[in-house]
Amino acid sequence: MLIQPGELLAQIDSPADLKNLPKDKLVQICDELRDFIVDNVSVYGGHFGASLGVVELTVALHYVLNTPEDQLVWDVGHQAYGHKILTGRKDKFHTNRIYGGISGFPKRSESEYDTFGVGHSSTSISAALGMAMASKYKGKNKQQHVAVIGDGALTGGMAFEAMNHAGVSDSNILIILNDNCMSIDPNVGALKDYLTDITTSHTYNKVKDEVWKMLGKLSKFGSSAQEVISKVEGAIKSAVLKQSNLFESLNLRYFGPVDGHDVNHLVEILRDLQDIPGPKILHCVTVKGKGYAPAENGNQTTWHAPGTFDKVTGEIFKKVPSTPQPPKYQEVFGHTIVELAEQDERIMGVTPAMPSGSSMNIMMKSMPHRAFDVGIAEQHAVTVSAGMATQGLKPFCNIYSSFMQRAYDQVIHDVCLQNLPVVFCLDRAGFAGADGPTHHGAYDLAYFRCIPNLVVSAPMNEEELRNMMYSSLSHEGPYSIRYPRGKGVMPEWRTPFQQIPLGQGRIVKEGEDVAILSIGHIGNYAVKASEELAKEGLNPAHYDMRFVKPLDEELLHEIFGKFSKVVTVEDGCLMGGFGSAVLEWMMDHGYQAQIKRLGIPDAIIEHGEQEQLHQLCGFDAAGIADAVRSLAEVAKAH
Amino acid sequence: MLIQPGELLAQIDSPADLKNLPKDKLVQICDELRDFIVDNVSVYGGHFGASLGVVELTVALHYVLNTPEDQLVWDVGHQAYGHKILTGRKDKFHTNRIYGGISGFPKRSESEYDTFGVGHSSTSISAALGMAMASKYKGKNKQQHVAVIGDGALTGGMAFEAMNHAGVSDSNILIILNDNCMSIDPNVGALKDYLTDITTSHTYNKVKDEVWKMLGKLSKFGSSAQEVISKVEGAIKSAVLKQSNLFESLNLRYFGPVDGHDVNHLVEILRDLQDIPGPKILHCVTVKGKGYAPAENGNQTTWHAPGTFDKVTGEIFKKVPSTPQPPKYQEVFGHTIVELAEQDERIMGVTPAMPSGSSMNIMMKSMPHRAFDVGIAEQHAVTVSAGMATQGLKPFCNIYSSFMQRAYDQVIHDVCLQNLPVVFCLDRAGFAGADGPTHHGAYDLAYFRCIPNLVVSAPMNEEELRNMMYSSLSHEGPYSIRYPRGKGVMPEWRTPFQQIPLGQGRIVKEGEDVAILSIGHIGNYAVKASEELAKEGLNPAHYDMRFVKPLDEELLHEIFGKFSKVVTVEDGCLMGGFGSAVLEWMMDHGYQAQIKRLGIPDAIIEHGEQEQLHQLCGFDAAGIADAVRSLAEVAKAH
Repeated sequence: MLIQPGELLAQIDSPADLKNLPKDKLVQICDELRDFIVDNVSVYGGHFGASLGVVELTVALHYVLNTPEDQLVWDVGHQAYGHKILTGRKDKFHTNRIYGGISGFPKRSESEYDTFGVGHSSTSISAALGMAMASKYKGKNKQQHVAVIGDGALTGGMAFEAMNHAGVSDSNILIILNDNCMSIDPNVGALKDYLTDITTSHTYNKVKDEVWKMLGKLSKFGSSAQEVISKVEGAIKSAVLKQSNLFESLNLRYFGPVDGHDVNHLVEILRDLQDIPGPKILHCVTVKGKGYAPAENGNQTTWHAPGTFDKVTGEIFKKVPSTPQPPKYQEVFGHTIVELAEQDERIMGVTPAMPSGSSMNIMMKSMPHRAFDVGIAEQHAVTVSAGMATQGLKPFCNIYSSFMQRAYDQVIHDVCLQNLPVVFCLDRAGFAGADGPTHHGAYDLAYFRCIPNLVVSAPMNEEELRNMMYSSLSHEGPYSIRYPRGKGVMPEWRTPFQQIPLGQGRIVKEGEDVAILSIGHIGNYAVKASEELAKEGLNPAHYDMRFVKPLDEELLHEIFGKFSKVVTVEDGCLMGGFGSAVLEWMMDHGYQAQIKRLGIPDAIIEHGEQEQLHQLCGFDAAGIADAVRSLAEVAKAH
Repeated sequence: MLIQPGELLAQIDSPADLKNLPKDKLVQICDELRDFIVDNVSVYGGHFGASLGVVELTVALHYVLNTPEDQLVWDVGHQAYGHKILTGRKDKFHTNRIYGGISGFPKRSESEYDTFGVGHSSTSISAALGMAMASKYKGKNKQQHVAVIGDGALTGGMAFEAMNHAGVSDSNILIILNDNCMSIDPNVGALKDYLTDITTSHTYNKVKDEVWKMLGKLSKFGSSAQEVISKVEGAIKSAVLKQSNLFESLNLRYFGPVDGHDVNHLVEILRDLQDIPGPKILHCVTVKGKGYAPAENGNQTTWHAPGTFDKVTGEIFKKVPSTPQPPKYQEVFGHTIVELAEQDERIMGVTPAMPSGSSMNIMMKSMPHRAFDVGIAEQHAVTVSAGMATQGLKPFCNIYSSFMQRAYDQVIHDVCLQNLPVVFCLDRAGFAGADGPTHHGAYDLAYFRCIPNLVVSAPMNEEELRNMMYSSLSHEGPYSIRYPRGKGVMPEWRTPFQQIPLGQGRIVKEGEDVAILSIGHIGNYAVKASEELAKEGLNPAHYDMRFVKPLDEELLHEIFGKFSKVVTVEDGCLMGGFGSAVLEWMMDHGYQAQIKRLGIPDAIIEHGEQEQLHQLCGFDAAGIADAVRSLAEVAKAH
């Protein structure tokens, strides 16, 4: 169903159309753009609050800039729906995040207006600076380069690395700080407080201006020294002590804060800023969910990506299943860490800005002195955990698989080299689904298993997740547990804790001719495949290996002693992953089985529902069954 | 040869001994500590300038703090020689960086005074904060936690992530900013300028104090308003406009700057700071190489790690070989990028704070508008390169293999997902040598080959490095080239450029029974092994595969068609590396050879000379020969 845009928006097929509008139509186009986003997301789901918050900024930017010649980089990209709609993707917008449809994030291959693909936080300043340096090198002095970055994303270290460089670069770059006090969850950290200080008390520029004005006036009217002193003292206090400007320290000219919802004022300011060369920052204050009352006034975390909802009442639709459903792995993690922490004083929780996504918020609520959101700061999250671990604590550091790429060195250098007992919980391992390739947790099995000392495990169900978390407590070194986004398979999941000996797999089903070795949740497909194959008289064995490292060598000797045909199944990259580990072990131990490895091929896999992508890559139940069939045929032919 | 310490230092076996000294002996102990460092490094080599710069700080810290109960974290650790000498390792200090001896960096397994293992930059605040949070949780309110971090290390993003968290943590942490304006090369970026501003003009605190004092005085003496205004105006200008304090913005109480070479003053300040709770920063100004004139006044980059030298004259000893020697791979890179850039306008150079180490300084000198040091900021280095690449440029981003771990997500997310033509040059791949496990480039082949779109190559000699750099120019996607620290094998290395077709290996030597497949420089060991084996009548074939990805499939079909015994050789981790890639390919293509994989085992390999470590891991010439012998025996037995 194509959602109809408003009258004016219907005429906008590109920023050029927008630029032809008289300025007095800008408020109307903002209203229509906002409505179109609300209409679409309420029906099709997607990210919501962030895009509503930058409607005016989006319109103003495309009205003033000469895109795509001028270059606009959106940080993370949750907020870029308006940008997509104004840059020729209005008619495809209902395909947002659907398999084969447009991406939920800016993406270079999708549009020339998407100058840089995003999804992970804090990259925009670096990217825009690279573009600005290229322009400078080519002598394109008029070209504008704009990075729009949220206050949450600004806590990511690479944003500071980029500002440190930008400040001395003499490049034509404008950083727009989209300050809404939120990541997905409320933003945290000293920087947030600082930005709030600037905004809620007087502004830096305002104070500066007022001091000058006051000095001028006083000097004119011959006030007494006493009077001057007391007034100036107050001004200095707020100016020097409170409003010292962090960005000017980094040699970025600072402007603002300005109201990010006044489109006409934004247009004026952006025009003025075009004439000011060099690196600069414009501080815009916006509200996430702006203009849609339930989002603006309700829980902003919920309205970050609410799913579908009734746009009139603001009621978010929730499917109520008729039978008890298995929980999400996230919920199992969230409740289990609290359950364990109640028994074990050493346990601490650390999340880099994903309290609600990871369910660490459950522990943060019930044990606020033991669970911490450290901001969008994966590197710091890992090393602060390492610091805690040196003091005998057991930090559980929960980071999405694809975001763990951000902290790879810290895992190697700060945790594993020192063999410190940090427990890494890798959420969103395997395909992330609608978020697409930037969020797929495709590589962790490969990039983790090559690190010495690190245990690499993945549960096949809720009970195994609980037991791995429990078992990690008695391991004197780093321990990682990966699990996917979404539901497990056990409606009754609160089973008593049991120790899983380090590196011990288990047999799921005895069988003959072919052995299936699976790792993690994806093993449930193998169960289904076995059920299908049974109907055809095929009876493969199935092992849930549970650990990629250390491998269960006893079990592997048993398997390769019995079977000469093996299928490995993982929801991770085939290059260097679990199947590769099994292959290495087999070769090192002198066995000569035929191994068919199923997993994510060496390619960028686009967005879509998880099951669609599993099917696409050939490791859903049907894919596994096919692999077993073809090997069984060979086995029988011999 | 044990170097004799001075009279006082001879009596110091632990910080407790130091604390027993009367305060008036502190200058003498500093002098003796400095002499001992000079005496040792001049004879045995090692890092130099950084440790001389913090002699007074080191003495003051151990004099005031109650280590190891109080916790001291040194960032990077180049500067920790004094710390090691004062904490019981004086008598082992001559074994520094030697195989089996003490590490050149703080290391937990070496001493209880080394609270956190370091080597990579910018981790100390996170680690110390984790410790401080643990203390707070345990109610140890008196425990002190100190991170000593250089101004260079402060440009690394994770230091900002940590300060953002520290500022709201209410933890008892003191950050000591060791500001010497240097990384290994001179520090760069806006932050450096800012710190210099604070230091060279009046200090923030001084201005603040002066304004208050002036207001007080004026008010007492009834000066005229005019007078007040003009004086206050000047103060505000410098206070508000220049000396706004970045650290206070992050809610860290800022003290300083202070002279980092006045040991008695440092002792006083550190004592005072112990009574001030919460997160705080002390800005110390120091000079790298302080107290040793040739280092203090000479080229500080040279004196960062000068090798051995004549301590009286300051002459650095250089071995002058009698025959022409092959160049270092670093030199080949540095000259070749300039040679290519002269012909190809698209080429740009990016290094994160390693201009001299990588030889990017050659291009920075001859083409300053096209080669950039972006500071200790690997994440930014990769993404700013990606930004340039979107504009049709060909950035060569040179990062040491172990530091590339810092930018792993940026390589995946910002470069490879978008298939952007950035050329990654991974210096220090394989064993780093004396720098040890934090610097060994052990994992890159494994963690890079699982990334889609990324070419993974390694030259066996200088000519191949040149030709790979040349060939990367015509590849429309990301291309990585890894090479080791140190010398190649071709004294006459300036050969004309030749295109190496993507993924094409080469045969080094025809042979029989066994095929050796090598990747990179380490293949030269295979040449030697073949020469040895020839004396025994064994004649293995040898292939220099050149690419881990894409593999040369034509060549592999030929090899596995001929040989059923294969040895793979790499100076990278065996888990998931080159040998694993060959194994996967063989299995996927239905061959059944026996493969013996040589490389770095799944363990932390300590420091030592590169050759020692190769031997230890069994992939030096002798190790390769052994592997061939054992396979050849099997082959002949069949």
